[in-house]
Amino acid sequence: MRIGVFDSGVGGITVLTALRERIPEAEYVYLGDTANVPYGTKSPAQVIRLSLECARRLKQSNVDALVVACNTASSLANDALRAEMGAIPVFGVVEPGVQAVVEVAEARSSSVLTPVLVLATRATIRSGAYGRALRERLDPVKFPVFEQACPILVPMIEEGWIEHRLLREAVEEYVAPFRAKYPSGVALLGCTHYPWIQPAIEAALPGWTVVNSARALGRSLESRFPNAGRKGQPAGALEWIFTDPEALPEFARQFIKDVTYA
Amino acid sequence: MRIGVFDSGVGGITVLTALRERIPEAEYVYLGDTANVPYGTKSPAQVIRLSLECARRLKQSNVDALVVACNTASSLANDALRAEMGAIPVFGVVEPGVQAVVEVAEARSSSVLTPVLVLATRATIRSGAYGRALRERLDPVKFPVFEQACPILVPMIEEGWIEHRLLREAVEEYVAPFRAKYPSGVALLGCTHYPWIQPAIEAALPGWTVVNSARALGRSLESRFPNAGRKGQPAGALEWIFTDPEALPEFARQFIKDVTYA
Repeated sequence: MRIGVFDSGVGGITVLTALRERIPEAEYVYLGDTANVPYGTKSPAQVIRLSLECARRLKQSNVDALVVACNTASSLANDALRAEMGAIPVFGVVEPGVQAVVEVAEARSSSVLTPVLVLATRATIRSGAYGRALRERLDPVKFPVFEQACPILVPMIEEGWIEHRLLREAVEEYVAPFRAKYPSGVALLGCTHYPWIQPAIEAALPGWTVVNSARALGRSLESRFPNAGRKGQPAGALEWIFTDPEALPEFARQFIKDVTYA
Repeated sequence: MRIGVFDSGVGGITVLTALRERIPEAEYVYLGDTANVPYGTKSPAQVIRLSLECARRLKQSNVDALVVACNTASSLANDALRAEMGAIPVFGVVEPGVQAVVEVAEARSSSVLTPVLVLATRATIRSGAYGRALRERLDPVKFPVFEQACPILVPMIEEGWIEHRLLREAVEEYVAPFRAKYPSGVALLGCTHYPWIQPAIEAALPGWTVVNSARALGRSLESRFPNAGRKGQPAGALEWIFTDPEALPEFARQFIKDVTYA
């Protein structure tokens, strides 16, 4: 099985890593649209146009499934991507992330008020995709849903400030009002970059459960393709494509080998 | 006279403002390539390709001069833009900024060691355009030139954190090593966004002179076109074009009226 993973840049590497941990035997092709990163600040029309171009590129590369690792693309372009891919199944990050949050929230004692906090880029939050899906699935009285755009975090991560004091303070800036109001809750990492700073987010939200939608996506893909990888086989090949390979942020180069120009 | 001002996004508004202060009678058309912002993280080939598309758009709009407000485009695409524009003069921000620094540096007492610090995006620093031009014009013993990429500042400014504690701390992070070594010097704002945070940069570099290349560009344009505006005439018209008008950062909307889709 050959799985195409598409992202606006390098953030989807966290999704790729989670998938390869889950299904190491599959073949992967990662397409990062580094010529057009970030999607998080673009208009919906632009995000859809760019996402379709990437999907076509992966279709030509004969993938058996398309994983839309980019939360912004998942939130805005999901329907367009399904139409484009036809018989090839499309997996976004929004639905598995929402499913994982619902499971965690409902597993908690029914008497405790449990806020759900979505952390994401501005475009993802503006799309309302997470908020809508969560509110459809959760009792609004027991599980109030909040959405917080955190646009400064991706630039800080790409600057390599993953363990930097200023990153911790920026996280604090965004989550402190929720922590002050609720001693516990569920926070969803609604941006592919955020798993890299999961420790900082967990430290800022003690008592809260932090959900990584990349991991939830791995489970979702595996349940749809139980035979995607035959256990015991060697790890499948991994191909990297970047629309602007020179535009890779320094911190991401450690993960990437043998890049192809799209 | 009709002056085209081109920038990768909204940062060039600081340049436009400086030009309109200097030559209010001219007509202006501002083109912000918000569909492709930021240029600062892209490869030189991409920056050149996108800059040429914007220049063509302004040529069709019958400008008499092209101002390249974006430091990244000025640093990387200057020659390509001159070739594209033919007889229409092209003004970048690099040369006037360098000229202004040289004047300030040389006006200081000749016995004092005067470091020159260029603050800019990663792509501008990588291009080496400022460093090269400054080192050609300044005695390297008396005027050591340093270049510091500050990639986190633009996202913070676009987040509206102009007077935020975290912005001051990020500035501190970038400039403290230079302040610690030199009690005085000249700092050049090598990114169009930085004039918005000039007070924060000046506060972090007490004893230093901070040079705004937008203002230097105004002087340069006026000396080339002494009759660009007839004093006493009403202010000329101003047209806004954005390649993705929906992608304007919130903080910039206060400056912008009547936007056209490119």
